[in-house]
Amino acid sequence: MAHAECSLLSEADFVMTTDRSVFYISDGTAITAEVLGHAVLSQFPVNITSLTLPFVENVQRALAVKAQINALYQQSGVRPLVFFSIVTPEVRDIIVQSDGFCQDIVQALVAPLQQELGLSPAPVAHRTHGLDASNLGKYDARIAAIDYTLAHDDGISLRGLEDAQVILLGVSRCGKTPTSLYLAMQFGIRAANYPFIADDMDNLKLPPALRAHQNKLFGLTIDPERLAAIRQERAENTRYASMRQCRLEVGEVEALFRTHQIRYLNSTNYSVEEIATKILDIMGLTRRMY
Amino acid sequence: MAHAECSLLSEADFVMTTDRSVFYISDGTAITAEVLGHAVLSQFPVNITSLTLPFVENVQRALAVKAQINALYQQSGVRPLVFFSIVTPEVRDIIVQSDGFCQDIVQALVAPLQQELGLSPAPVAHRTHGLDASNLGKYDARIAAIDYTLAHDDGISLRGLEDAQVILLGVSRCGKTPTSLYLAMQFGIRAANYPFIADDMDNLKLPPALRAHQNKLFGLTIDPERLAAIRQERAENTRYASMRQCRLEVGEVEALFRTHQIRYLNSTNYSVEEIATKILDIMGLTRRMY
Repeated sequence: MAHAECSLLSEADFVMTTDRSVFYISDGTAITAEVLGHAVLSQFPVNITSLTLPFVENVQRALAVKAQINALYQQSGVRPLVFFSIVTPEVRDIIVQSDGFCQDIVQALVAPLQQELGLSPAPVAHRTHGLDASNLGKYDARIAAIDYTLAHDDGISLRGLEDAQVILLGVSRCGKTPTSLYLAMQFGIRAANYPFIADDMDNLKLPPALRAHQNKLFGLTIDPERLAAIRQERAENTRYASMRQCRLEVGEVEALFRTHQIRYLNSTNYSVEEIATKILDIMGLTRRMY
Repeated sequence: MAHAECSLLSEADFVMTTDRSVFYISDGTAITAEVLGHAVLSQFPVNITSLTLPFVENVQRALAVKAQINALYQQSGVRPLVFFSIVTPEVRDIIVQSDGFCQDIVQALVAPLQQELGLSPAPVAHRTHGLDASNLGKYDARIAAIDYTLAHDDGISLRGLEDAQVILLGVSRCGKTPTSLYLAMQFGIRAANYPFIADDMDNLKLPPALRAHQNKLFGLTIDPERLAAIRQERAENTRYASMRQCRLEVGEVEALFRTHQIRYLNSTNYSVEEIATKILDIMGLTRRMY
């Protein structure tokens, strides 16, 4: 009993030292602060509770945020971590003067770069994910890519494939749609996708409309076990979701990829970000940035 | 003539000093390196030509990348900038030993954090956009959000709106679909959207199916001039794309937002990232991270 209590105590101590609150703060969307702060924190054995505060653009809002940081410190007794990116000095200074442990995510890289470039940083408010006259055309092309991808999702249309930059092929629920949308959204890529459906498996062929675009084809495959688990979520206890059917479909489609020398990737252990960037890399497609 | 030549020369000099090649390199997707490097560089008056090299995971690939950096330096005479994030020391060291000006995007923040936390960083390979047993459930929820959003795009279905976290309303081509998809993709938000179509404008009403979810409704509006320009791209010289029609629709829909006290945002000068994060902020929805 005494032993158990002692063990509980030390566990509590451990939790106290490794729990931290984190603020991601920006005068913009705070997406960059979130992603980078998360990447840095993932290198430490610490449990984080995070709060993202975007569009901290004026003194009034900054004062409210500072009060929020300080109140959390008072309440928890543990100094909150603050990853931020704010251009306007008066707004920035208020955050830095909070009781949080404040880290400017961009500034750490600006000083060395200033020296290398022999240029001074321009103090203009930058919107990483902003929209203005200089990038409106590029932005419209991105939205057009999303439109294209939606219009060519799931084999809806095999017309206009000459405008596709990549055509994803695979069985139902192997990740074609989320990957296509990510390619369009993040990189402005016009990505069509085409599903091989269960009824075609006995005599699986590559439709002539696709064969005409051999160099744009890219296959996705997936482990039958994972595929069955995903399908069970949507259609429990159906033939469609059975291991036998999943194994059959994956086997047939992989054979087709090999026969037609279509490059392919097993998506089982990859996120949409990883699948999308691997496809761009393998196919030599340019990554645009938005 | 001499004057013109002189002017050309000095222009060339200017270009030489402010043009730089940039490499974004990572053992993962390199999305973080791209986004952060781009944010840092945007503070300097420099024209960049960038190349992103993801999945630099082994010595062989790193040596090829190093050779590529060095060759570009040789060829251009200007030192390439390299923003990188690589965990494995042997792979990392090869990149650092290249002739590029190398900046580790994560490491600059790790040292101060190490001191604050009193913890050592764990040398495990981290995949910012990775997938493993620890986050598979969360990842599946994200994919489910994308499925939900596609199934409830453009008023396709008014069933199941009780599962929506936000329902976007607006005229055709004001940004509903890209914003909904971004909310689902980036933040795992189940976002439905509903278009008000031209034929309804004479007697514009909020459908009862939407009125039942008043607290989830969010309006998007847009300047009629921008709307007309977007519509002209799709349907030139139609009534749909005319300034008169765009002005009418926007006026009617904004009046409806006000009548029903629906919060709304003018999307004209904002990117999907900005619109999406503003909506989350205004509606108090939690931002998940993937």
